[in-house]
Amino acid sequence: MDSHIAAVPLEKAYRLLNHGPSILVSARHDGIDNVMAAAWACALDFAPPKLTVVLDKATRTRALVEGSGTFVIQVPTAAQLQLTHAVGTHSLDAQPDKLARAGVQLFQMEGVEAPCVAGCSAWLACRLIPEPHNQAAYDLFIGEVVGAWADTRVFRDGHWHFEEADPSWRSLHYIAGGRFYAIGEALDAQQ
Amino acid sequence: MDSHIAAVPLEKAYRLLNHGPSILVSARHDGIDNVMAAAWACALDFAPPKLTVVLDKATRTRALVEGSGTFVIQVPTAAQLQLTHAVGTHSLDAQPDKLARAGVQLFQMEGVEAPCVAGCSAWLACRLIPEPHNQAAYDLFIGEVVGAWADTRVFRDGHWHFEEADPSWRSLHYIAGGRFYAIGEALDAQQ
Repeated sequence: MDSHIAAVPLEKAYRLLNHGPSILVSARHDGIDNVMAAAWACALDFAPPKLTVVLDKATRTRALVEGSGTFVIQVPTAAQLQLTHAVGTHSLDAQPDKLARAGVQLFQMEGVEAPCVAGCSAWLACRLIPEPHNQAAYDLFIGEVVGAWADTRVFRDGHWHFEEADPSWRSLHYIAGGRFYAIGEALDAQQ
Repeated sequence: MDSHIAAVPLEKAYRLLNHGPSILVSARHDGIDNVMAAAWACALDFAPPKLTVVLDKATRTRALVEGSGTFVIQVPTAAQLQLTHAVGTHSLDAQPDKLARAGVQLFQMEGVEAPCVAGCSAWLACRLIPEPHNQAAYDLFIGEVVGAWADTRVFRDGHWHFEEADPSWRSLHYIAGGRFYAIGEALDAQQ
């Protein structure tokens, strides 16, 4: 494992998603790996940590998540702008070499079944909590976070350090039509 | 209505939330108004637009949403940093003058039952889609967006203009312990 990757305590895992970044969903089933980008992922609970993610019926990743019952949510960086857009706009069905074309490098986090995307800032390994009505009616999937890791160059001691890290580490926040915003300036409310 | 506020076509309403800002939830029931901040809100569908928001059982706002079946999700600005933190950390039960103390000014959007918070950048009027299991098991509420508006100084023609607007208009993205990040630089992926 990359020497910069460190485990994040589960009770602080929500912080990896709390600022609403666009994310990458990765999954593996029956020897097939896939990765897609999604803007509609959100923390759902603190302990045990849970999250929601919307997976359209047209996506191949959804079938892998349903088949395997596990997935990884990871936070891509500004350096991965093109990769993120590419895996969000191309389908594995239409483009079998989608991952290679997008420049995705996969690695295995110890003890995690689904593949992880190298170069991200954070990874949340999830176990699907089956909710057939939500999945069918809303494309809404709930995961329990069973492991969390981050790159210590931008998240350490339970906090993001975007303001000190190189701007290439900033999270991406998608709007539409290829337009993202990077996360910006730190602002501290008076307690 | 403030002359800068303009309706947003419902098919573009998802863009108001797509970048994952922390939001304010407002609701009214039986003559009681309340506003709370939440980081766990997310777009759920395009057409008709839907969203999810997590409302803890301890919040007064949740009871107002359950009672009235309507609520407004609005996007606060960097200028509202202290207001946002205040309505996210104080409860109406413990502090009956919570809204006045936080500096919240409410107004009515025409045709919307729930009150709106002045000074925000965008407003999404929602009708609760009752899902008792999600509400009880996960504190997860689903709303259909029935009206959307934005302040044209920062969102117009279906797009955010954070990069041209004054920085005080930037959206807020909460982490923990009073630490927010403002949204940052625009990044365009090559198509």
